[in-house]
Amino acid sequence: MTVHRRKKIEIVVEAAMLADVVEWLTEHGVKGYTTVPKVSGFGRQGRRQAEDPARVFENVLVIAIAGEETARRILAESVERLRDYAAIVYLSDVEVARPDHF
Amino acid sequence: MTVHRRKKIEIVVEAAMLADVVEWLTEHGVKGYTTVPKVSGFGRQGRRQAEDPARVFENVLVIAIAGEETARRILAESVERLRDYAAIVYLSDVEVARPDHF
Amino acid sequence: MTVHRRKKIEIVVEAAMLADVVEWLTEHGVKGYTTVPKVSGFGRQGRRQAEDPARVFENVLVIAIAGEETARRILAESVERLRDYAAIVYLSDVEVARPDHF
Repeated sequence: MTVHRRKKIEIVVEAAMLADVVEWLTEHGVKGYTTVPKVSGFGRQGRRQAEDPARVFENVLVIAIAGEETARRILAESVERLRDYAAIVYLSDVEVARPDHF
Repeated sequence: MTVHRRKKIEIVVEAAMLADVVEWLTEHGVKGYTTVPKVSGFGRQGRRQAEDPARVFENVLVIAIAGEETARRILAESVERLRDYAAIVYLSDVEVARPDHF
Repeated sequence: MTVHRRKKIEIVVEAAMLADVVEWLTEHGVKGYTTVPKVSGFGRQGRRQAEDPARVFENVLVIAIAGEETARRILAESVERLRDYAAIVYLSDVEVARPDHF
């Protein structure tokens, strides 16, 4: 089997921003993503609670796989695009078996 | 401390397939796994919604750590085994402190 | 854009241990973390069920980003600190755009 290298893009962002983030990824040709709802945490803008009754601070983890060039472009754009949000973005290397899926 | 390299196997699959996936990993000698329920997303087979009332399309993220050889065998087998499902499988490198756990 | 390398620390631990883990990470200067609640799985200490009514075995996945030295210190300390728990700890490489956040 040939293994193909891709980049995993992980974005933690306010749940209210999810539709915008998905549209942004899709504009870059990202073919699929996985979302993990109701994540929470603490960062530079204070505690973000999944259990917040108003869900104002509910966060979502978005996981997408893309080619290296696309992933780096998304990471670069994230600095400006998510500047005003308690968002976290990072890339890592992954190996996939079916490159046509990503 | 000696750090030991392992592979992380991540599989996103329909929740209804979870028992099969776990059995498959166990057959390969995988000693433990973590599951993240109610993930959702959009991929080549259409939107997969965690909030789908019938839960037909509810997905689960399975995370397992294994040796490189085992992980590559699982990745190779996934092509055939998950061919008919909206499944995503990828590997990445991790470092662990207690190799006897994996 | 300059990309900065960091380590991702992932810890799966009983939900009851979350506050201790967060305090431990904070002592090491970790600036933020994300938690994924209600994960479950099977490992060397038996099945850990998210749906356990008493929530005794509910687990949480803690994700933090840190510099390499900090991450390795946390991994080393985890052997002793989490010895009595069904905890899993592993590191991986990530790339970030805004190093001041981590």
